[in-house]
Amino acid sequence: MSGVKIESATDLTHLLKSMPTRDPLVEELARERQNSLTKPAGSLGRLEEIAIWLAGWHQREKPSIDNAACVVFAGNHGVAAQGVSAFPPEVTEQMVLNFENGGAAINQLSALSGASLNVVSLNLDRPTKDFSVEPAMNEQECCDAMQTGVMSVPHDADILLLGEMGIANTTAAAAVAQSTFGGRAKDWVGRGTGIDDDSLKLKYDVVNCAVKLHGADQKSAFDIMRTVGGRELAAITGAVIEARHRRLPVILDGFISTAAAAVLCKENINALDHALISHQSVEQGHRNLIGKLGKRPILDLDMRLGEASGAAVALMIVKAALATHNGMATFAQAGVSENE
Amino acid sequence: MSGVKIESATDLTHLLKSMPTRDPLVEELARERQNSLTKPAGSLGRLEEIAIWLAGWHQREKPSIDNAACVVFAGNHGVAAQGVSAFPPEVTEQMVLNFENGGAAINQLSALSGASLNVVSLNLDRPTKDFSVEPAMNEQECCDAMQTGVMSVPHDADILLLGEMGIANTTAAAAVAQSTFGGRAKDWVGRGTGIDDDSLKLKYDVVNCAVKLHGADQKSAFDIMRTVGGRELAAITGAVIEARHRRLPVILDGFISTAAAAVLCKENINALDHALISHQSVEQGHRNLIGKLGKRPILDLDMRLGEASGAAVALMIVKAALATHNGMATFAQAGVSENE
Repeated sequence: MSGVKIESATDLTHLLKSMPTRDPLVEELARERQNSLTKPAGSLGRLEEIAIWLAGWHQREKPSIDNAACVVFAGNHGVAAQGVSAFPPEVTEQMVLNFENGGAAINQLSALSGASLNVVSLNLDRPTKDFSVEPAMNEQECCDAMQTGVMSVPHDADILLLGEMGIANTTAAAAVAQSTFGGRAKDWVGRGTGIDDDSLKLKYDVVNCAVKLHGADQKSAFDIMRTVGGRELAAITGAVIEARHRRLPVILDGFISTAAAAVLCKENINALDHALISHQSVEQGHRNLIGKLGKRPILDLDMRLGEASGAAVALMIVKAALATHNGMATFAQAGVSENE
Repeated sequence: MSGVKIESATDLTHLLKSMPTRDPLVEELARERQNSLTKPAGSLGRLEEIAIWLAGWHQREKPSIDNAACVVFAGNHGVAAQGVSAFPPEVTEQMVLNFENGGAAINQLSALSGASLNVVSLNLDRPTKDFSVEPAMNEQECCDAMQTGVMSVPHDADILLLGEMGIANTTAAAAVAQSTFGGRAKDWVGRGTGIDDDSLKLKYDVVNCAVKLHGADQKSAFDIMRTVGGRELAAITGAVIEARHRRLPVILDGFISTAAAAVLCKENINALDHALISHQSVEQGHRNLIGKLGKRPILDLDMRLGEASGAAVALMIVKAALATHNGMATFAQAGVSENE
């Protein structure tokens, strides 16, 4: 099994300069097909858009999803010691066990939507450093985490769902987002799993100080992730760039997944053209982030769980898009009169 | 097979005065269950709300959907002769054939979401009268259509999806909505399958004149439907009241289905407590209608097709709600530490 190689910061920069794009000719064929189907033109709305977009990435007029793959990365964070989460750090590992035993939300939702589920733990016994005082990772650690992400993308996947678990990782995601797109901590920090007002103020300070300490907003995508990110976020970054080099469409989950993917836009604003945003999370900062990406989420269900839970629900919408695109009769086939 | 009886306008009024409600005690049990599951409280957002709501209607702490039933009613409209649609009237019957042959959007979407599909044609060879000059139906015709709706609800259904097909039926739906909730035609009339500006102006006039002609805004739910409705709309009205008397949850589709159900609110504002709005349609008027009902649609995908297509997509979200509600482990079961 091959995969892109990320052995240094410059490797990532090179990968961002040589990305394949979707096929406009196949997209046009898919658009023509949509307009021939037995419905008023455009009346399936975003289902039509998604089917056409997917045709472009799959390079097939009638694309299919037979091997949806959901990968959930788990990591621990030194910054949790600052008291930025409502849950204790041991919950990361407890939840990984829950994933393995089939008891979490993502187990139910990946089964329902027909996605395989892989949970990848990244050195849970070795949290990243507290990035409010030192870089979260050294270069080797960050490369290793990204490469784990690369190697975690199943070789037969035809769509990739990415999620995460990691106590305190909304703090890391906020620092990554602020370093990528600027602004202040208030633009990116939210209540995560449900912190109170005092913890929220502390979280603002932690993120603002960390971004300033590392000069992270002046850095490359790799160095943002290395200094204020986390292992599971870096793994998502790696998986997203691997998917892009395979023309594999991606469904991102909520704030953390989106921030981990969006760091790539620091170097190439088109880096997420192959990614859908599954849902609008309640987490403060996600709306802002989605706006910076110029995207529109598929769902808005007041979710804020992570684990790829939103991505798994959105997969069902993508499947609805393909079911109609591939299965409907044309006006000619059905003998239905067209618009006068 | 039993079912409520609608043999006169007063029958409907009586049915609206004696409606069962959902069970608050079972809802409370379901809410407690949600709060015990391995996730931050409330982090599944609307999925949690939907599961709790469904528990209340099914009167089971862990409700299930094993027999989702989708019923699509088709009718023809005399008002089509006014030129209010972009498609010719024969398309109604052609699309019914398309449904029967499995070529329409709803065939793909009901199969994907796991709903049975029944298509019920209502006297397609005998369109309603042109309600811009006379009442659409007489009392017997309207009763027959409503009773067909009642009898079309499968006896083993545990959730009911309602949709429609009928060239010119956005015109009828707009007239019904205006008669139910007031306002002017501009508040309710949209482009339907895609009419141009001239036809749109004509459609405003047709609806305004019809509501005035029949004094429909002063009438009962039944007489609104009889004078400015249509057979497939009346059938939806009948199916919705039948479902309510069985405590059977309903998923409404877009503008037309919602208007056909909402006419019941003319006599009892709580008449649709057992109904979810599947999606926000692009059809002008749907947003206004949903606002009057105080509801929030599950999806917003720029759809405007009808056929229960939005309801079938939303069914997948409802199934996601139940999959998590029923399948997830509790904190105690999984040995996960709770919020500090």
